Amino acid sequence: MKRATTAAFAPRGTLNETRWNEILTIAAEVFFQKGYEAATVREIAKRAGLLNQGSLYYYIKSKEDLLLALIERAYTQAVATLEEDDAVAASDGPTRLAAFIVRWIDKMVLSNNPLAVLEREFRSLEPSQLDAVRPLRDACNAFVRAVIEQGIAEGSFDGSLDPSVALHNIFFLLNNTHRWYRPAGRLSYDAMIDWYQTFILRGLSAPGRPAD
Amino acid sequence: MKRATTAAFAPRGTLNETRWNEILTIAAEVFFQKGYEAATVREIAKRAGLLNQGSLYYYIKSKEDLLLALIERAYTQAVATLEEDDAVAASDGPTRLAAFIVRWIDKMVLSNNPLAVLEREFRSLEPSQLDAVRPLRDACNAFVRAVIEQGIAEGSFDGSLDPSVALHNIFFLLNNTHRWYRPAGRLSYDAMIDWYQTFILRGLSAPGRPAD
Repeated sequence: MKRATTAAFAPRGTLNETRWNEILTIAAEVFFQKGYEAATVREIAKRAGLLNQGSLYYYIKSKEDLLLALIERAYTQAVATLEEDDAVAASDGPTRLAAFIVRWIDKMVLSNNPLAVLEREFRSLEPSQLDAVRPLRDACNAFVRAVIEQGIAEGSFDGSLDPSVALHNIFFLLNNTHRWYRPAGRLSYDAMIDWYQTFILRGLSAPGRPAD
Repeated sequence: MKRATTAAFAPRGTLNETRWNEILTIAAEVFFQKGYEAATVREIAKRAGLLNQGSLYYYIKSKEDLLLALIERAYTQAVATLEEDDAVAASDGPTRLAAFIVRWIDKMVLSNNPLAVLEREFRSLEPSQLDAVRPLRDACNAFVRAVIEQGIAEGSFDGSLDPSVALHNIFFLLNNTHRWYRPAGRLSYDAMIDWYQTFILRGLSAPGRPAD
């Protein structure tokens, strides 16, 4: 279903899937830099090296279509990050959450899937346009909720902390990494990952339990 | 200096300071709902009950002026939240941070100062336009950094956690409360405050130290 939805936007013949993904990535960059409202299909077409913007408009009815295709691509990738290897799947809640943080940062934050930017623009779409991504988003929330609830059941995490609030704040922190982390900056990749794992796992930890 | 900067935008004679603040609050609402790029001075003027938009344009050169005045108003208020009563000022780091979280939520988040929205639009301004607010913003960062460093010196907080990263993530969490908290919603005000205090204080806690 995910592929079919994306394929509905993907042009036939002229542009292949690789090219289509390149165009989406460029669209994401322009939305990220200018903001969705200020971004223009003209600029996206220009950066994509399409000689006239008509060749883009032929395939895409509107800027909204690019946004929607990007959101679908991002959430399809998001669901893929929920897959755990056998060892992690058999681990306790904190270990599974620590491993999820690494997978999410690698595939969703340091990739071409700027979820923070895309989610901000959900208001630009009709609720019905998000029908295809809602189950994918729900799956991501359900995964993190289950891991938190496992940690609570095991006594590692604090049962008085609301799991819904926790999961939204965790996604929110991770998805906005680009606001403070620079790959070539002062803090290394390992230090960034360590920051999140430490802050989030301790933040959820059960009272009176040694935090480390 | 702060008042003088705001006064430079405040119209003389026709609009008094109260009216000017009303207009700014309406501008904040429109920026919040539509996004800064999509918002128009026309709509702000209409909602403010200004019969023709010229009466607004007479005082404000551009939408940018409204954004800048809002940012200045918000950061002036932000600096006011740094004031502690004597008992809190004499307390340990975790107590001071817990008290700061309440003050910031009350005065900056549940007020007409949507910092999260305003900060997102910094890119719409020239760096030089932010010269007046930069010292105010620095003062907020320095306050939280000092409280974190006090907690580290006292052994309550983990000295291996980078205070800069911590303070940015704390402000980021607090400033985006509107994304999940509804005053009339499932979670009470007290539960929301408790969530932040617990998650953030435990998140910063020293390893091996009981988390509560």
